[in-house]
Amino acid sequence: MLYFNNDYNEICHPAVLKKMTQSEGIQNPGYSMDECCARATALIRQKCAAPNAAVHFLVGGTQTNLTVIAASLRPHQGVISADSGHINVHETGAIEATGHKVIGVPAPDGKVRAEQVARIVDNHRLSEDAEHIVQPKMVYISNPTEYGTMYSLAELEALSALCKEKGLYLYVDGARMGYGLAAKDNDITLPDYARLCDAFYIGGTKVGAMFGEAVVIPNPSIAEDFRYLIKQRGGMLAKGWLLGLQFEALFEDDLYMRISAHADKLADQIRKTLADLGYALYLPGTTNQVFVTLPDSLLSELGKEFTFATWEKADENSTTVRFCTSWATAQENVDKLCSALVRLSK
Amino acid sequence: MLYFNNDYNEICHPAVLKKMTQSEGIQNPGYSMDECCARATALIRQKCAAPNAAVHFLVGGTQTNLTVIAASLRPHQGVISADSGHINVHETGAIEATGHKVIGVPAPDGKVRAEQVARIVDNHRLSEDAEHIVQPKMVYISNPTEYGTMYSLAELEALSALCKEKGLYLYVDGARMGYGLAAKDNDITLPDYARLCDAFYIGGTKVGAMFGEAVVIPNPSIAEDFRYLIKQRGGMLAKGWLLGLQFEALFEDDLYMRISAHADKLADQIRKTLADLGYALYLPGTTNQVFVTLPDSLLSELGKEFTFATWEKADENSTTVRFCTSWATAQENVDKLCSALVRLSK
Amino acid sequence: MLYFNNDYNEICHPAVLKKMTQSEGIQNPGYSMDECCARATALIRQKCAAPNAAVHFLVGGTQTNLTVIAASLRPHQGVISADSGHINVHETGAIEATGHKVIGVPAPDGKVRAEQVARIVDNHRLSEDAEHIVQPKMVYISNPTEYGTMYSLAELEALSALCKEKGLYLYVDGARMGYGLAAKDNDITLPDYARLCDAFYIGGTKVGAMFGEAVVIPNPSIAEDFRYLIKQRGGMLAKGWLLGLQFEALFEDDLYMRISAHADKLADQIRKTLADLGYALYLPGTTNQVFVTLPDSLLSELGKEFTFATWEKADENSTTVRFCTSWATAQENVDKLCSALVRLSK
Amino acid sequence: MLYFNNDYNEICHPAVLKKMTQSEGIQNPGYSMDECCARATALIRQKCAAPNAAVHFLVGGTQTNLTVIAASLRPHQGVISADSGHINVHETGAIEATGHKVIGVPAPDGKVRAEQVARIVDNHRLSEDAEHIVQPKMVYISNPTEYGTMYSLAELEALSALCKEKGLYLYVDGARMGYGLAAKDNDITLPDYARLCDAFYIGGTKVGAMFGEAVVIPNPSIAEDFRYLIKQRGGMLAKGWLLGLQFEALFEDDLYMRISAHADKLADQIRKTLADLGYALYLPGTTNQVFVTLPDSLLSELGKEFTFATWEKADENSTTVRFCTSWATAQENVDKLCSALVRLSK
Repeated sequence: MLYFNNDYNEICHPAVLKKMTQSEGIQNPGYSMDECCARATALIRQKCAAPNAAVHFLVGGTQTNLTVIAASLRPHQGVISADSGHINVHETGAIEATGHKVIGVPAPDGKVRAEQVARIVDNHRLSEDAEHIVQPKMVYISNPTEYGTMYSLAELEALSALCKEKGLYLYVDGARMGYGLAAKDNDITLPDYARLCDAFYIGGTKVGAMFGEAVVIPNPSIAEDFRYLIKQRGGMLAKGWLLGLQFEALFEDDLYMRISAHADKLADQIRKTLADLGYALYLPGTTNQVFVTLPDSLLSELGKEFTFATWEKADENSTTVRFCTSWATAQENVDKLCSALVRLSK
Repeated sequence: MLYFNNDYNEICHPAVLKKMTQSEGIQNPGYSMDECCARATALIRQKCAAPNAAVHFLVGGTQTNLTVIAASLRPHQGVISADSGHINVHETGAIEATGHKVIGVPAPDGKVRAEQVARIVDNHRLSEDAEHIVQPKMVYISNPTEYGTMYSLAELEALSALCKEKGLYLYVDGARMGYGLAAKDNDITLPDYARLCDAFYIGGTKVGAMFGEAVVIPNPSIAEDFRYLIKQRGGMLAKGWLLGLQFEALFEDDLYMRISAHADKLADQIRKTLADLGYALYLPGTTNQVFVTLPDSLLSELGKEFTFATWEKADENSTTVRFCTSWATAQENVDKLCSALVRLSK
Repeated sequence: MLYFNNDYNEICHPAVLKKMTQSEGIQNPGYSMDECCARATALIRQKCAAPNAAVHFLVGGTQTNLTVIAASLRPHQGVISADSGHINVHETGAIEATGHKVIGVPAPDGKVRAEQVARIVDNHRLSEDAEHIVQPKMVYISNPTEYGTMYSLAELEALSALCKEKGLYLYVDGARMGYGLAAKDNDITLPDYARLCDAFYIGGTKVGAMFGEAVVIPNPSIAEDFRYLIKQRGGMLAKGWLLGLQFEALFEDDLYMRISAHADKLADQIRKTLADLGYALYLPGTTNQVFVTLPDSLLSELGKEFTFATWEKADENSTTVRFCTSWATAQENVDKLCSALVRLSK
Repeated sequence: MLYFNNDYNEICHPAVLKKMTQSEGIQNPGYSMDECCARATALIRQKCAAPNAAVHFLVGGTQTNLTVIAASLRPHQGVISADSGHINVHETGAIEATGHKVIGVPAPDGKVRAEQVARIVDNHRLSEDAEHIVQPKMVYISNPTEYGTMYSLAELEALSALCKEKGLYLYVDGARMGYGLAAKDNDITLPDYARLCDAFYIGGTKVGAMFGEAVVIPNPSIAEDFRYLIKQRGGMLAKGWLLGLQFEALFEDDLYMRISAHADKLADQIRKTLADLGYALYLPGTTNQVFVTLPDSLLSELGKEFTFATWEKADENSTTVRFCTSWATAQENVDKLCSALVRLSK
C-alpha cells in the first residue's frame, strides 16, 4: 500500500534523524534551556528577520494553537476562524476547553477575508448589548489552509492592517508552512509573517521533523510568561533539546525549503495528471495537498493500492478526496499513482 | 416613554411582592434549605406530574444555562443549539467558559429540527477521525425561541425520541416558558416537558417574578450533586427562600398561566394591528414577542413615545424590530401603541 | 427558635424594602444601565473618595469573587489566600473552576501577613524552575475575616505596599465590610480601601440588603471590560436597577453604618456576657461574629431555643461555635440569649 | 561537567533509538492507530495481567496527569495529593487549569496515607455545608514519590481499599515507576498496580525512552472516550507509532526493568558512600533519587565538576540536594562522584 492520505506517516528526514542519533551520550539541560534550542532560536530569528521575536518549540499543532490562544485572550474574548479552520473542527474543542469561543466565518476556499473580520468587529461594537456577546480579539488563519489554498501577500497585509486598526491579534497556524513558502505562486516570506503577525508557528511535524513546531511571537504582550503557559498546558518537553536540534537540521542550510519544494512539485504532477484526465480540482492549489472529486468506481479500485483521505461525499456517484505528498514522498510512487489514475480512468 | 423593548423592565407581579413583604421579620435557613423552597418544589413537581424530578431555583437564565450544561457534559462533549440560540450569541461565551463548544445549526425560525441533530450525530459517528471532533451530547432549545416561535408537541417529541435513540440529553431554556404555555396554538404542557426532557427551566424573571428560574431535572444523572454546581458557579443565593416564595406565588393558583395569557393576548392585538396595516410579520407567532419589519421613517417617529428592540437592518429603508408585552403591560398602553402605529402608517 | 447562626436569615432592612416596593409600576432599562445604579455608583464613589473607580453591582459573594479573579489573572497566575479563606474552602472550587490556583497560606487568625506574601513571591522568583510553578499575582483577603478578626490600617497598608512593590493585585472580600467599618477598634475607612486596593466589594447581602454586593475597582486594568465578565459568569441581573436602589437605600444617609454598628454592639454584649462567665473567645473580635468554645452540655441545652453555627470540635467535651448578630437582630433576642447563657452556665 | 541533576538529560536507550532508526522509510497510520502501538498495548496488558485495561501513549507527564484527571472528574470534584505532589507544585497549575482543585495533604515523606484520605472524605460528608466544599473524588499519588520514597504494597492496598469503600478513584503517577519496580525493597508489581488502581502511568521519558508515558486504565468509566480527551488537551501525537515502538523496545525483553535496576544500584552506591561519610539522608530510599543535606562548602566545590538539583536550604551552612542516577548513568561517573564526595569531605 502506498500512502497519500497525509503528510505525517514517515518518521523524519534523514538529516534530522542523523542529528538526533549523533546526540547519543550527550547530556543536556532539560525543558529547552539548552544550546540546541538557543541555536535553533537564533536561526529562526535570522530567517524571519525578527531579532526580537520570542521563539518557542512545542511538540504538536493542537498543543501549539491552544497554548498561543490561551496566552493571548482574556476570558470574554474569542478567536475568529474559518468555519473549516482546524481549531474549529478538528481539535475536539481544544480552544473551548481553554474557555474561549471560536467565532466561525464561512470560507468556501478556507480563507478568512479582512472584510469578514471588519464586519464582525463592527457589528459587535455597534451592538446595543455588546457586553452580552463574545468580544472578537484574535484572527486565526492557517496558511496553507485546510484546503491547501493560500493567502496572497496582499490578503495577509489586508488582514494584518485590519487587525492592527481594530486592536485584534493575527495568528497564523503554519502546520504546513513549508509547503506554502515553497509553492510556485507564493509571495509571502518568513520576514513577512514576522512583520504582519502577532504570532505564528512554523510546522515541523509535517515538514521533515520527527515532531515539533516552532512558535514565533513578535508581539511581546503574547510572549510574556509564555513558558508558564507551555508548562501548564502540558507542552513542555522534558528533553527539549530534541526540538532544538530538529529545527537546527531543518533551518541551518534551507533543508526546510528544499524538502517542501520537493513535495509541492510532486503534487503539481498529480494535479497535472488529473487535469489532463479532465477532472476538476475541488479548489485550485500549488501546495502539497490535492483536493479533487473523483468517481466512486475509480476510487474503489485506486484504494486497493493507494491510501488517500476521504473528504466528503460530492454526489451519489463521486467523492471529494485528498492526495497528500510530503518531504518523504518518492518520485516513483507518484509515478505509480499517476499511472493508476490514467489507467483507471479509461 | 412607554416600554415595549423587553419583558423584564418592571419589578414583579403584586402577588409576588406581597409574599416577599409579608416575609419581613421571619427568619429562614439559608441556601434554599427552607420551607418556601420545599413548598415551591412540591408545587412544581405536581404541575409537572414529575414527583421524582429534582427542582432547583437559580437567579437568572445565563447562570442556569451554564450550570445545567456544566453539570451534564464531560469535557470533550458539546451542545447543539440553533445558530441564534441564546447560549450561542447572547451569553458572552458563558458555555465556552465552562469548556464546552456550542455546535450551532442554521435555524431561520429559531427552531432546531430532529433531522439536523440526527445528521450531526451520524456525521460525527461515521467520521474517520471522530475523536478529533467535539462529541455532540446535548441539544439545547429554547421554547418559545429567541424569535418568539414555538415548537409543536410533535416536534418536541421527535427531538426527544431522537435524543434518546442517540444518547443525547435534551435541555429546554424556558426563559419565556409561560408565554409559550399560554399561547393560543400551543399544545405542550408542563408534564410534556417533564416527560420529554432531561432538564428544563421555568422562567420567572420575565414572567412575573422579581428574579428567579426554576430548573426541573427529570434525569438523575444530571441531577446528581447539582447543588455543588450551583454553588461553584456562583448561583447559590444566600437568601434562597426568596426564590421559593416567588415560585409559590406564581404557581399556587395558576397565576403564572394567567399573567402569561394576558401578555400573549396583548401581543395578539399588536400583531392584528400590524397585519391590518399590511405589515408582514418577520416570523409568525402567538407569544409575547412580535417581530416585524417596519419603515425607518415610521420607527423614527414611533421611537419618540415607545421603546422597542432593534433586531437588524432589513434593507436600506426598513428595520426589523421587536415589540414585547409582558405580565405587566397595561391594556391602555397597547391601545396607545396600536393607535400610534395606525396614525403613523397613514 | 431564635437565629444566631448567620447574618442572612431575614429579608432586608425596611428602608431597602420600601424603596423596592415604591418602584412598582416603574419601568427601567435592564442590566444595570439605569438611573438607580447610576445614583448608587455616584454615592459609593463619593463615600470612597474615588471618583474614577469603576463600580458594579452583583448578586452574591461567590459570584463576585470568581468574576473579579477571572477578570484579573492570566491563566498561569494564582491568588494567595488564607488557608481558611472563603475562596479556598467554602466556594466549591469556584476559583479553580475559572482555571486558577488558590495558593493557601497558614493563618490561625484568618489574616494574611505581608511577610507571608513576600516569602511566596520571592521563593517563586528565585526558583530555578519558576515557570513550573503557579505565578502569584493577586492577594485575596476578607475584612472582617472568616473568623471575625480585622486587619488594622497598618496591616492593610503593609499588604498594599508589598503588592505594589511586587506587582501583585490586592483584592478585599467585603461580605461583612459594614460590620468591620463600624467596629469600635476599626481604623480603616472606605477611602482607605479605595486607596490601597485594586478591587474590593462592599457586601450588601449580609448587611441590610435583600441581596447584592457592590464591587469597587480602582485599578483600570481589572475594570476593563468588566461587564463582559459579569455577563459571562452569570452575574448580570436582568432587573439590575434592583441592585442600584438597594445600595441607594444603604448609602444615601449612612444607613449602612448605622445598622452595622447596631449588630456590632449586640455582639459586644454577647462577648461581654461570655467573658463574664469565664469563657475564652476563640479569637478576639469586635465585629458581628462571636467565636467561642463552649461545653457540649451547655450547647445541647442552648440549641433548643437558639441556632448557632458549629465550627469545629475543640476537644472531647466542648465545641467551637459561632454566634452571629446582624442588622436585623433584636435587642430582646440578644437579652434572651445572654440570659440563657448565664442560666445554663450555673 | 557530569550530570546528576535529573534523569532526563540523555536522548534514550540505544535499543529504543535503534527501533526508531529502523523505522525509516516505513509508512504508518497516524494518531497511534498503528501496529506498533497495538503491539506495545498487548505487551503492557500482559505485563500488567490486565487484558481488558485501556492503554494509551502520551508524550509527557504533566500532559498525562491533566488528561487523566480531566477525564475522571465532574466539575465540582477535586483530587487529593501530597502537598509536595507534582500536580500540586510543579505543573504550573495544570490541574486547576482544567477546573479542578488539588486538595493538598501534609506528607513529610511524600506519601499520602489512607487515614488522611478517610479524614478528608468523612469531614466532607459530615459537613453541614458539604455542597460548599470541593468534593474529593480522586487520590493522586506518585510512586516512587517526589522524594524518592516508596509505598509498600500494604500501603497501596490500604489506599485502594479505602478509595473503593468511599467511591474515590486511585491514580498513580509513575513518572519513575521503573526505578520503583526495580528497587531492592519494593514489593509492588505491575499486576498489583492494575489490580489496585483506577488509572496509572508507566513512565518512559525518565526510564529509557526518548519521550513517552504509557497510561493504563483498568477502570472503564475513566477509559470511556479517553482518546477525545487526549486530542482535546493537545497530547495526541501525529506520529503516534513512535510512542508504540519505544514501549515495545522497553517491554519486549524486560529492558525496562534491567535499566531501572542499573540506576537504582548506582544510587545505592552513592547512598552508601554518603552514609560511610556520616551524612544523614534527608529521607531513606532505594530508588534512583538520593536526597541528602550537605555542607554548602562541599557543594560549592562539588558543583565545579558535577550537577545536582538544589532542593532547599536546610540551615545557614547546609543545603538539601538531590543526586539522580538514570538508565544512562555510567558506572565510572558514579565512581568519580563518590571519590569526589570522599575527597571533599576530608
